Formats: sequence, C-alpha cells, structure tokens
Amino acid sequence: MTLFYDVIVVGAGHAGCEAACASAGLGAKTCLVTMDMNKIAQMSCNPAVGGIAKGQIVREVDALGGRMGIVTDRTAIQFRMLNRSKGPAMWSPRAQCDRGKFIWEWRHQLDITPNLDIWQDQVDGLLTENGCVCGVTTIWGVEIRAKAVVITAGTFLNGLLHIGRKMVPGGRIAEPAAAHLTESINALGIRSARMKTGTPVRIDARSVHYEDMVRQDGEQADRMFSYLDSETFERQFTDDRRNFALPYLSDGNCAGGSVLPCWTTETNSRCHERLLSGLADSPLYNGQIESIGPRYCPSVETKLMTFPDRTSHPLFLEPEGTDSNEMYLNGFSSSMPMEVQIDALREIPAFRDLRVYRPGYAIEYDFFDPTQLKHTLESKLCKGLFFAGQVNGTTGYEEAAGQGLMAGLNAARLASGEDGVVLNRDQAYIGVLIDDLVMKGVDEPYRMFTSRAEYRILLRQDDADRRLTALSYSAGLATSVRMNRWLEKEKGIETLREILHNTTVKPQKINPYLERIGSTPLRGSYHLDDLLARPGVTIDGLIEYGILPESIESLELSESIESSVKHLPSLKSEIIEATEVMVKYDGYIRREREYAEKMHRLEDIKIPGNFDYNSLQSLSTEARQKLSARLPQTLAQASRIPGVSPSDINVLLVYMGR
Amino acid sequence: MTLFYDVIVVGAGHAGCEAACASAGLGAKTCLVTMDMNKIAQMSCNPAVGGIAKGQIVREVDALGGRMGIVTDRTAIQFRMLNRSKGPAMWSPRAQCDRGKFIWEWRHQLDITPNLDIWQDQVDGLLTENGCVCGVTTIWGVEIRAKAVVITAGTFLNGLLHIGRKMVPGGRIAEPAAAHLTESINALGIRSARMKTGTPVRIDARSVHYEDMVRQDGEQADRMFSYLDSETFERQFTDDRRNFALPYLSDGNCAGGSVLPCWTTETNSRCHERLLSGLADSPLYNGQIESIGPRYCPSVETKLMTFPDRTSHPLFLEPEGTDSNEMYLNGFSSSMPMEVQIDALREIPAFRDLRVYRPGYAIEYDFFDPTQLKHTLESKLCKGLFFAGQVNGTTGYEEAAGQGLMAGLNAARLASGEDGVVLNRDQAYIGVLIDDLVMKGVDEPYRMFTSRAEYRILLRQDDADRRLTALSYSAGLATSVRMNRWLEKEKGIETLREILHNTTVKPQKINPYLERIGSTPLRGSYHLDDLLARPGVTIDGLIEYGILPESIESLELSESIESSVKHLPSLKSEIIEATEVMVKYDGYIRREREYAEKMHRLEDIKIPGNFDYNSLQSLSTEARQKLSARLPQTLAQASRIPGVSPSDINVLLVYMGR
Repeated sequence: MTLFYDVIVVGAGHAGCEAACASAGLGAKTCLVTMDMNKIAQMSCNPAVGGIAKGQIVREVDALGGRMGIVTDRTAIQFRMLNRSKGPAMWSPRAQCDRGKFIWEWRHQLDITPNLDIWQDQVDGLLTENGCVCGVTTIWGVEIRAKAVVITAGTFLNGLLHIGRKMVPGGRIAEPAAAHLTESINALGIRSARMKTGTPVRIDARSVHYEDMVRQDGEQADRMFSYLDSETFERQFTDDRRNFALPYLSDGNCAGGSVLPCWTTETNSRCHERLLSGLADSPLYNGQIESIGPRYCPSVETKLMTFPDRTSHPLFLEPEGTDSNEMYLNGFSSSMPMEVQIDALREIPAFRDLRVYRPGYAIEYDFFDPTQLKHTLESKLCKGLFFAGQVNGTTGYEEAAGQGLMAGLNAARLASGEDGVVLNRDQAYIGVLIDDLVMKGVDEPYRMFTSRAEYRILLRQDDADRRLTALSYSAGLATSVRMNRWLEKEKGIETLREILHNTTVKPQKINPYLERIGSTPLRGSYHLDDLLARPGVTIDGLIEYGILPESIESLELSESIESSVKHLPSLKSEIIEATEVMVKYDGYIRREREYAEKMHRLEDIKIPGNFDYNSLQSLSTEARQKLSARLPQTLAQASRIPGVSPSDINVLLVYMGR
Repeated sequence: MTLFYDVIVVGAGHAGCEAACASAGLGAKTCLVTMDMNKIAQMSCNPAVGGIAKGQIVREVDALGGRMGIVTDRTAIQFRMLNRSKGPAMWSPRAQCDRGKFIWEWRHQLDITPNLDIWQDQVDGLLTENGCVCGVTTIWGVEIRAKAVVITAGTFLNGLLHIGRKMVPGGRIAEPAAAHLTESINALGIRSARMKTGTPVRIDARSVHYEDMVRQDGEQADRMFSYLDSETFERQFTDDRRNFALPYLSDGNCAGGSVLPCWTTETNSRCHERLLSGLADSPLYNGQIESIGPRYCPSVETKLMTFPDRTSHPLFLEPEGTDSNEMYLNGFSSSMPMEVQIDALREIPAFRDLRVYRPGYAIEYDFFDPTQLKHTLESKLCKGLFFAGQVNGTTGYEEAAGQGLMAGLNAARLASGEDGVVLNRDQAYIGVLIDDLVMKGVDEPYRMFTSRAEYRILLRQDDADRRLTALSYSAGLATSVRMNRWLEKEKGIETLREILHNTTVKPQKINPYLERIGSTPLRGSYHLDDLLARPGVTIDGLIEYGILPESIESLELSESIESSVKHLPSLKSEIIEATEVMVKYDGYIRREREYAEKMHRLEDIKIPGNFDYNSLQSLSTEARQKLSARLPQTLAQASRIPGVSPSDINVLLVYMGR
C-alpha cells in the first residue's frame, strides 16, 4: 500500500509531535508515524518540563506556536519559577506534570490539528531518488511518499537496555527497538554512532516514609508556560472540532496552583557502600557500555566515582500523576543490578520499606553526528531529510521539542518550495542549541544551559513572544490569534514604558517607599523609569505607594488590552513583569544587543560553499582541517568552530575583502 | 534478585487485574507482573463492556467484589440496557467506554488495593518443586517466589500478528510477544494449542461522513453496572489512600447519561467485491492461519464466505473516547491486506474519504486446553498453578474478568490453606462458563451466550448481588460495605414484597389503570402481587394511580434504607426493579429453582478420583473414554460431558448406590 503526503514525521515523542504540528500548521499534508498511539509524547524519564534554560526553550516553543507549553500547563501538578532571586536572565519556569494526562493531552493536540494524520506502524527504511528523500517504508510493507521526512526516533534506533549484566533489546523499557532504519540512513553516507542514557527506579508511593523527607511545594502562579490562555488557545482550532467532541476537560491541571508536593532526601554512606559493592556488575564500569552518557544527568554510580569524597547526594521524589502511586526518584538514575539499587535505597531512612515497580536502567541507542546537518536541521547529504531530538545527540524533552518544531517548520517550507527558517543565537535558545549542534557537534548527550548562550540577557523567559512570535507568524506557523495576543501585550508594554518615562516624582512622595525598601532617599525630582532601575524598586511598589495612578486599571491601556485582560488576567501581570525587566536591565540589554549586532556583521560575510581553505597558508593547520570538515556558511559560524582562533578569523576577514 | 509473595498474577489484562484484586482482597500478598504499566487492562479490541450474557457477567463480577463494573461506570461514555422489551432474563447492560480513561481508572483500582504490588517485567518461566508451582522467572533475571501463580497472559504467548501475507511477532499491535513461558508450562505436561482472533481497523473520526450514517444514542440510566455507587465504593478503601492523593476525578464518566453516540451503516456489494478480490492474500483463506477464530466475532471476510448470498452486513462505528479522534469499526474485523480493507471501506458512502490509523489484523496465540483444569481453575497437573482468560481458550473481556476473579480468589485461598470456591451453574454465568470450559473443553474461542445457561431466569442482571454477594463475603472477598449495602437492598425488597402481598385493591380503584394499559378490569378485590403478575402492570404504575401509598417514600422502608437511598438514589429504583421481576416471574423462577435442586442432588453424588470406568462394562465405550479422560468429580459434572448419555448417568447412579 502507498500513502501520499507532503511531510512524514517518524516518531511521536516530544520532537516528533512538535514537528508534526508545525508542519501541518503550515498547511503541509503531514503523516506522523508512531509505533504506539498510546505512548504519544510519553515522558520516558522525569515527569517534569522546564527548568533552567529548558524552561526558556518551552516559552520559545510556545511563542513560535508550538504545543509543549499548552500541554504542560494543562497537565501540570506543580509549578515553580526557579531563580526568582537572581537576575531575570536566570528566571526559569518548571512544572511537574501528570504523565498519563500529558500523553492524552498531546493526543488531543494532534487530534485538533488540521492536515495531520497519524499512522501506527514502524518505519524500517528510507526511500530516496537522486540523493533526495522521497518517503519511507514500514515493517508492515507500507510505502509512504513525501517531499520531506523528519526523523525523530529518540532512543529507539537499535536500542539496547541494560540492568546490571542483563541486556535486552528495546527502545524503552517494555517497548521494541527499531531495527534497519539506521542502516538505511547509513547507506546515504550519513554517519551514526552510539550514545547512552539512563533513568531511575520507579517507586511505590505507599512504601515511602514521608516523615523522613522534606516536603517541597509549588508556588501559586497566575501563569505557567503558555502565552495563550487555554480558552484562547482552543479558539485557534475550534472550527476543526466536530460537534460530537466534548470541550476538553482540564480538571487535572493545577490552574496556577500547586496540587502535589515533591519530597527531598539524600543518599548516605551506607547507601554508597552498597552501591560500590556492586560495581563489578555495573555496565558503566565493567566495559559493557562504552558509549557516553549525559554529563549533567549522571547515574548515581557515576556520581560516586566522580566525587569519591562526597558522603551524600540529593534525591528528589516526584509524583507521576495526581492519581497514581508511581513516583520518580530524581537523582538516582542507575544501571546497577536491581538488587543493588534497591538494597542501597533501603539504607536511606525514608526508603527503609521501599517497594519499586521497576529498577533504573540504561539504554544505548544510535544517533547521527549533527555536524552533518544544515542550520535548518536538513541533512547536508540528503535533500529533504531532517533530523530532530535525541537522534541529533541531545538529551531533554525541551531540547527535542525545540528542534522538532524547527525541523517540522523547515520540512513543510521545503515541501512547498520556500526557504528555510533559522533562528540566530541572539534570538532564541533554540538558535543556540541548533548552532551548537551543527557547528560543534557532540561528543556526549547535549543539554541546554544558560551558560551556553552568549546573549543570556536577550534570551529571557519573559520575552520569548517578543523575540519570536512575529517571526513565526510571518513564517506561517503562529496563528493570528497568537499574533494579536502578542501585539496587545506589546501595546501595553509601550504604554506603560511611556508613562514611566514621562512621569516624574517628587522626593516627599517617593521617599517613604524608598526608605521602606532601604534605598537612598531622593533630593530632587526623578523620572520613574530611572527610579525603577534601582534595586528593590518595583512597579507593584510604585502602585502600592500611589506613585503610579491609583491602580493599574487607570494606566490608559487601550480598550483592546482591557478586553483581553478580562479574558486573561495574567496578561496584565505579564505586561508589568516584561516592562519592569526591560526598564531595569535596559543598560545590559542594550550592551548585549550591540555585541550581537557586531557578530551579525560577521554573519553577513558569507563564505562560498566550495571555498578551498587549504589554499590559505596563513590559516593554522587545525583551522584548515576543521573549516574544511564543517564548511561554515558565514564568518560568524566559522568563529564558533572549536579550534578556529580569532587570528584565523582575521585571516579570513582580510581575504573576504574587509 | 528474589521477591517473595503469596500469589503471583502474570499479566495485567481484564483477567489479571481482577485476579490480583481478588487475591489481595483476601489478604494474600500479591504481585501483579505486567510488561507495561501503561497498558493495564487495555481494551485491545472493542471499547465496550457488557452486552447480552456478558453484561450479566460484569454484574456478577461486581456482586462478588470485583472492579470491572466500577471501572466501566466511571469511564462510560454511553450506556444502554439491551433487550428491555424481552423478559428480564435477557436484559443485559452494555456500555461504551473511554479506552484511555479505562486504563488509568484500572491503575487507580490497583493503586488503592492493599497487599497488591505491581512489578513491571516479563515472565519467561515457571519455578516448580515436587510438582507444585513455587514461583516465576523473568527476562530481567528476577525470581519471584509464591505459593500460587495465576497465568493471565491473554494473546501474548508466542503471539504472531497477520495483515495479508505480512507476519510480525507480537502480543498485540506494537507490543512484543512473550516467549518461553508456554514451553515452560508444556514441560509440566500441560498441553497447549493455537487459537486466532482479530480486530478491525481504527478510523480517523474526522474522515467520516456522518450524514450517511444512522446515529445511535445511549439511554439515560440511574445506574449502570455496579451495585455500589462511586462514593460508597471509594469508602471501602479510603484508609489506604495517602493524604497526597486527590479524590478521584470522575468527570469523564457519563454519570447515568449518554455522552457520545455510536453510528451505524452497512457494507454493500461493491465493498464485498473489493474484499473478495483480495482473497488470495487473506491469511484465513490461503493457509497462512490454521488455528480457529471466534465463531461469533468473525472477520468480515469470513462473513462473506459463510453467507455468500448476503449483500450487506451491519457496521457499528464506536468512539474510543470523549477526547480522541480514534474510532472502532465493529463488524469489520479483518486480516486482509490493508489496501484491500481500506479500498473496500471506501466503497461505503460514509467512508468514501476514509483515513485510518491502522488496519485490522489477526493474531495467533497459545492457549491451554481447559479440561486440564479443576473447577477452581487450578491445573490438575501442577498444584498452585491457575489459568484464567484467553489462555483458557475464551474470548471477551467479561469472560476473562469472571475467570480472573475466581482464579485470584482460589489462588489466595490455596495460599492460605483454604478450600477452593466454585460457583454452580445455577448461581452464575461465571459458573456456567468455568464448568463448560473444564468439562467440555474448547475447539474455538469460547464466548458466553444466554443460551449456554440452562437456568437463565435464575441468572439475571438484576439479582447478581442476591446470588453472589453473601457467598463472596463469606469467602472473604466482598467487603462489609458491599455486604451491608446488599442487606439494605434485601430488606427493601422484603418490605415491598410484603406490602404487595398484604395489600388488596378494589375494582373501582384499580380499573382505570387496567383500562389504560389494556388489561381486563377486575370484578372483585385482588392482591397486589397477583395483580402485578399481569403483563403491563408495574409498580411505578401502581404508584402513579395511587394504589400504592402516595409515594414510595411512605412505604415504611427502614431508616437505614432511607439513609442509604439518600446516598444512592438508584437503590430505590433497584429495589422496585428487583421486586417487580421477582413477583412477575415468580412461577418461572420457582420452576427453574426446582430443576436446579434436582441437579444438585446429582452434584452431591461424588465420584472417587481414582474411579475405574473401564470396570463398568455397562457404560458405553465413548462414555468410558470421555469419563476416564475428564475425571468428573460429581455425577452432575459427568452428565454434562459431551458423549455421556442419560443412560450412562443411570448406570453410574445405580453403581454409586442410589
């Protein structure tokens, strides 16, 4: 049987689902192929979304029109804004989700998306014609034809599970691995290698002594991840819902609150001794696993070997859902023999009567060196073939979602003959992520950190919409509902900034406030925006002390803003938050923007694709090798390749005519 | 690693879940081993529970303290009482369920059950000692030790999937098959053979032309399957719920109503032609599948071959959930090549633009001849080894659940040294089912029908609690909450029967009512219970015409009944329904009861286990062979073995001393 589409997405995890929605959102007839429709966007590991840098990515995915933020908001059982005490570049939203509901909410997202079909089957090969991909084949003998294919196979390609000395093939515990697809991709000249990741034990909540743990509650929040409220979001797609479908029941979400707590404890030396006693049977230390795992998500045995002096490591017990006894033990990823894992945990007071559903395990899987990709995530070697997520050597749901969205967007644009869309490093963490992958490659699973971004103050969680929504709208992805919502917010910010800029305040009026917050009193009049730059001064404080007109309602916001505020109470607080950050950090933001502009000028200097670096003797040998291997398209890209020094860049700069 | 339990249940389908809850409910430390905790009680085929005879089984499972009724009620999206126009022996409840919610509600049921642990792994062998089972081994090298093991592996044992000429090993689509366990069971001398079943295509709801189908709504009902209301049910286990767990959110259930319709259409001759054109590639007709499938759930190609003259067959399109585009096409089970399935369906007007998620498929799997079992579902050949569900050659979720509950109950009783519990044929459809399996064996997948029961009027859906709850309570399974609820209902019925028996009515008062319903007017006073025996006369009618005291509230029900009525509005209607059936069908019920007593006397005549039938020359040769093979424990069992005639029974009766 043959099916015909514009775009095929292979795999329905966090990358694949975003890819499919983005592609279909652009109007491409899209086929999402998944082995199991019950495991759509399954959280294979931690039942949580966001966190430092990752939370920013989710906000970016949302600003671009993706779904991860909406799904998270609707299934969250705890929310926190991390790093509130630090600068706004570090503020990072994070939520615990109900794993079961997360799957069904994603199914719902796919269901309400026009142009998107799901086919339950397993891809086992690529179809190509003249070096271009033109479809896939499946284990059930189906041919699916398309102009572009996005591979988002996660850990399934030749997956091999490890627990102690036992090895079982599988793409995830209890699920078959996918054979033959790697080999079919290799046949196009695309290199693959192996990586490793792991996941901790799942614990029976009834067996835990909570009195020996520290409770960690979420915070009350008037918004979480999405820039759209639920109602507005649904309205975007309403026309495509059949009258027999009920309005979505979102009763399980925490609606801005905290439903379930997490719990913390720590390992101890008796626990460590028990773990170390099993080291001979550890696949990570007896040679059974040779591939590299995620540095920043190490197994507990790796922590013991790396930090032999530490007598304890923190553990976080996270609920898997509002209505499940299953709990996830963050910090205890392991592939040690299962009796070693369980015995070691029983040495911890809270777990003295531990019962588990299954032990932790490690998995080895195939990935494809991402330096073989263009910045659009299309293969350099095979036209129309895109890669996103763990198959590019990354780790993390958020990293996968960001890549998936961009790959799906670009696959759909390629299918309709349009140019690819690339995010710059000063535009989005997603831009940093993809540029790092493509330009530097990976030698271990790549995870996003704020430290990977050189423009951290430009890439904040509060302004992802400002950075990306207009771009996505013009690329055809963000809907007009989303675009208008952002425009309303922008108008509000502008109004508020003008008021702050044009309002002066006298000492006798402001000093009581300044005294209370321990700030030096004024001796003359002051512009409100200058005052706001002081630490401790907030818009809410100015309102409280009557410096800003009685209440924010009289800020002369336009009628449309007022009406949207009625629909979305959080929009007002978003306007205040964004304005405050922009005013307070104006200097930092301007400085980073200037630096970014400088780098953009290097970006503008293109290097011809067939440029012969060996003919430039003044380049270092290493630079000549690295540049010839990576073939950067611009000087800016060249400057980010490890081993290419600033003096090499100067040589190129001179040669390119500056 | 070794784990220690009293009872192990292998497989968490409809049989395994009931088995595990029953075993744990008796206080046995129970381990439920499942390959995949995301697929607990997955509805592999039709997203519906109940139906003719099957609905009665669900009511029996509920009356015994099982969970299928509660899970169904909480996840139902449409309910109907089938056959209301026929006699009450034929009334059969049936519900459509939300497949995703059904899984998570079952997870919740397991979660709130004390003594019950889940272990996610795959059993690949049995451990035995001196001909007794003492545990299982798993693919991850775990030994689980126990006094009893219940095998409820469904279609997973050496499962092989077929679509056209393509074959893929699997326990269900997208899930691995289970190897080695059959062989381990065979090694104990237990015979296995192969069966086949199938499932239809899953359809994208958005691609259907509903204007070309007939809509089929559910009915408003004040109760569905369970004798307990939700609140009462939850209270049974409340103490075991942790304070961090939320009360269950049951917003998805239809709460006595109808949420989603089904849709009907039919095949046509062009559809048939297309199907027949692919017959050469049909695994059922080209020799690829030799094992026998379910006679009463045939594939569409089998229907065409069996009824060549029929130009159409009915089809039912059933929603898979309130929030999913997936729909199930009842009546179109098939293992034809997928393009044949899809092309054929597109010949039907409603499906002219059909899109599917996956085609129908067939599966072959191992089962074990159930004549190798005792009536307790324990193996005759290996002490402590129980079998339930599809591994016994049955088909249907309800048949599985009934067997699972009995096997779990008996496994737990064996583990604690108690005698087994057996249901008689006049007590329950579950008794008929197990007796048929054990005494007659199966040569095709066994499905329950009312015609299989000789005491149909005794086995009604309205009185399963009356038949079974006290028995289950004394066996240790039904909780006191359930027992008391039943006692309250009984008291209500007794009171109402007494009132009906002791109240006489005069012609002038009753005749207007009788005239309205077309019944002969009275000429003298009449007892209400005699009057109720007339067709058309109902208790509700008597209340309406003021024959029964103004309203049912003044029926002098005891205070406890009144208070329970407050909690459960449906209890009052249940009392009225049950009383009416008992009064109306009193004669029939009494006659069947007498016949059953007669048969029980044969039941009382035990046959020694080592009885030598060959020494009885007056038995027919066939009877001697069949009796020696089956070794019935009583004369009644002997009488139900095919090939054993009434005259053979007379010979035995004489010999046994009557």
